[in-house]
Amino acid sequence: MKKILLQLDCDPFPSVFDVVTAYDAGVDVVLQYGNVTKDNVRDLVYGVMFTRGGEKLKSSAIFIGGSNVSKAEEILEVVKNTFFGNVRNSVMFDPSGCNTTSASAVAKMSKHVDIKGEKVVVLAGTGPVGQRAAALFALEGAQVVLTSRSMDRAKKAVDEIKRRFGFDITPAAAFDEDSTRRVLEGAVAALCTGAPGVTLIPEKIWKTNPTLKVLGDVNAVPPLGIECMKSSFDGENIEGKILFGSSGIGGLKMKVHRACVERLFERNDQVFDAEAIFDVAKELS
Amino acid sequence: MKKILLQLDCDPFPSVFDVVTAYDAGVDVVLQYGNVTKDNVRDLVYGVMFTRGGEKLKSSAIFIGGSNVSKAEEILEVVKNTFFGNVRNSVMFDPSGCNTTSASAVAKMSKHVDIKGEKVVVLAGTGPVGQRAAALFALEGAQVVLTSRSMDRAKKAVDEIKRRFGFDITPAAAFDEDSTRRVLEGAVAALCTGAPGVTLIPEKIWKTNPTLKVLGDVNAVPPLGIECMKSSFDGENIEGKILFGSSGIGGLKMKVHRACVERLFERNDQVFDAEAIFDVAKELS
Amino acid sequence: MKKILLQLDCDPFPSVFDVVTAYDAGVDVVLQYGNVTKDNVRDLVYGVMFTRGGEKLKSSAIFIGGSNVSKAEEILEVVKNTFFGNVRNSVMFDPSGCNTTSASAVAKMSKHVDIKGEKVVVLAGTGPVGQRAAALFALEGAQVVLTSRSMDRAKKAVDEIKRRFGFDITPAAAFDEDSTRRVLEGAVAALCTGAPGVTLIPEKIWKTNPTLKVLGDVNAVPPLGIECMKSSFDGENIEGKILFGSSGIGGLKMKVHRACVERLFERNDQVFDAEAIFDVAKELS
Repeated sequence: MKKILLQLDCDPFPSVFDVVTAYDAGVDVVLQYGNVTKDNVRDLVYGVMFTRGGEKLKSSAIFIGGSNVSKAEEILEVVKNTFFGNVRNSVMFDPSGCNTTSASAVAKMSKHVDIKGEKVVVLAGTGPVGQRAAALFALEGAQVVLTSRSMDRAKKAVDEIKRRFGFDITPAAAFDEDSTRRVLEGAVAALCTGAPGVTLIPEKIWKTNPTLKVLGDVNAVPPLGIECMKSSFDGENIEGKILFGSSGIGGLKMKVHRACVERLFERNDQVFDAEAIFDVAKELS
Repeated sequence: MKKILLQLDCDPFPSVFDVVTAYDAGVDVVLQYGNVTKDNVRDLVYGVMFTRGGEKLKSSAIFIGGSNVSKAEEILEVVKNTFFGNVRNSVMFDPSGCNTTSASAVAKMSKHVDIKGEKVVVLAGTGPVGQRAAALFALEGAQVVLTSRSMDRAKKAVDEIKRRFGFDITPAAAFDEDSTRRVLEGAVAALCTGAPGVTLIPEKIWKTNPTLKVLGDVNAVPPLGIECMKSSFDGENIEGKILFGSSGIGGLKMKVHRACVERLFERNDQVFDAEAIFDVAKELS
Repeated sequence: MKKILLQLDCDPFPSVFDVVTAYDAGVDVVLQYGNVTKDNVRDLVYGVMFTRGGEKLKSSAIFIGGSNVSKAEEILEVVKNTFFGNVRNSVMFDPSGCNTTSASAVAKMSKHVDIKGEKVVVLAGTGPVGQRAAALFALEGAQVVLTSRSMDRAKKAVDEIKRRFGFDITPAAAFDEDSTRRVLEGAVAALCTGAPGVTLIPEKIWKTNPTLKVLGDVNAVPPLGIECMKSSFDGENIEGKILFGSSGIGGLKMKVHRACVERLFERNDQVFDAEAIFDVAKELS
């Protein structure tokens, strides 16, 4: 029986990245649907729920993607509510790669330093990757600070994390060298999840910070978020700090993405959202 | 050579149900096209007519689906008129599952009672499933009555059946207990094809009807069309009547759907519309 | 690793012809995208560039098609500019079959007569097939004349050929028997690439022309572009002239199309546009 993955994407063009990765994870057929919304998704889900019964339900699964994470979250809610009893299919949720990227960054960084009870800073963390990374650091027991240039946006982001994940994250404003230096004081780890091409931590700040042990940066477009960072860094030790760049993190991300897609077809009742994807990332890192 | 099925669907999203079923019927590749109309379908058909010649034409076939049966019928007409000589592909027509559902219901019910020359009633039969079921009962030699709450709509439906299938069906209005009891007098079989969640035949009517031998109901959403019916009934004998619910009928429907798709690829000149699909349903029931 | 072809089509419905041909050329998965423009194509290309690295890049390739050749050319430019360094995928460009058709016609015709230094006429050559055929005849060393009913349109077409291919083609107006007879004087070969159903060369003109040795016609809809031509002619000798009709040319075109798709997956840095496709056509003719 063919492994069929239903790709639900909120963008007009369903992601090429996601479909190629699905085939590389051993899926036989990907059914690509774009322009999916919470209002039109139900019939699509019925199509996988009601075509294969019992043991065969696990041979159909669902991937939710697209560039708009909050619209994708609305879709996920409808998908989960459409299932009933044992009539359900496993689902992976990774719009914009937000889960696989944050899970891989946090898994790599927390492997190199014990963050339990320690201060960890997610800089420019208001986006989907930043919010999820903050939650996953908190899940690992860290005291997490999430920054934005604007305190209002930082507060809004930590409220969303509280609502979705139940963790208390400390909001902070970091908008210049002074505020950035202050927010990093006492931190053991810092992850930059800001916009491409914007430097967030100047060299002199992170190199002179005595407590920082590990730094990560998901930005792939120069200048990177951390001065002197290279995309290819995958645990390089620079003046006593361990550094992870976007390609270093990205290598694990691809493995995690493929592994999660593979595992979708092992049972029919799984949901690979942030937490479950993080478990896979820790296992593979 | 890969078996390629061209899925032509009048809805924006081509049916997930139909594509999964096609893969489960052994198709190698389904090409999914939505928003298909009689005006834009011709070039799509050329694409399967002119890519594989001679003996290889049978490795490409066409499935016409979607939720709007009359728009799908317009597409079918254009598809058939686009073919010429031996340059043609086999076609299956099953928008909203109207053919596979009606064929399966009639095949199951007529297997349990000799309906030739007998009165058969299709209740709330103005939709695609009801119209086709009425025609197939007539094809088997029954005297068919088709009901609607409105006599006008019942007349319109039997006119359409006359035009499409050539059979004379008797229209009737059934809108309350009295009219329902009267229309069922002398009938050996009754099939409900009404809207989900509407009871059409109260328990006291069908249980006290002395001639009724078999009852069917394609409604899957409670309350079902026949009081005391269960979706899962697949020939259960309740107080001397044989009952078929939507899942009982649906099990055969899935087999019929898959079998028809499989047979598309045996020759390049077949049209699986109501009659041919009914032949398959009788063979498999 | 599955061979994945990204089909980029400027039409709303990606071409069925192209996708079936791709599967027949051994592609495992075709990802079909319609309504592609120069403005939305970049992210689609990233999806194949960044999912498979190094040696595996060659297992993903791109096909650019659709009915609007100039829009497709804009897409091709963006695709080529999106690649960098070794991070690239092989690309085939064949909107409306313009390259495979012109390459096959020129390959067949130039195999039967030495056109180097000789006069060759492309009649009604302002469209994509005509322009490319004129350029390929010039590439083979012929003195090429391109006609239109209007001298202005002929001039515009030769300007476009100069810009794209660098060859000097002579424009000419051919709008009636006299002008057609004159333009063919001294020519060894004539190819008709006009609209379906329009006769361009009456029988008495080509049969009495003493220098013409080979005639081709891509028109498939009667009346054909050359009087007395048959679509099926594939090198037939009629009164001393060798004739190629649309089906004769089309047989080679299909082989060339499939061969080019197959070869896309041999390396990750190829561009199959007019010249490279012509090389394949000469090899297979």
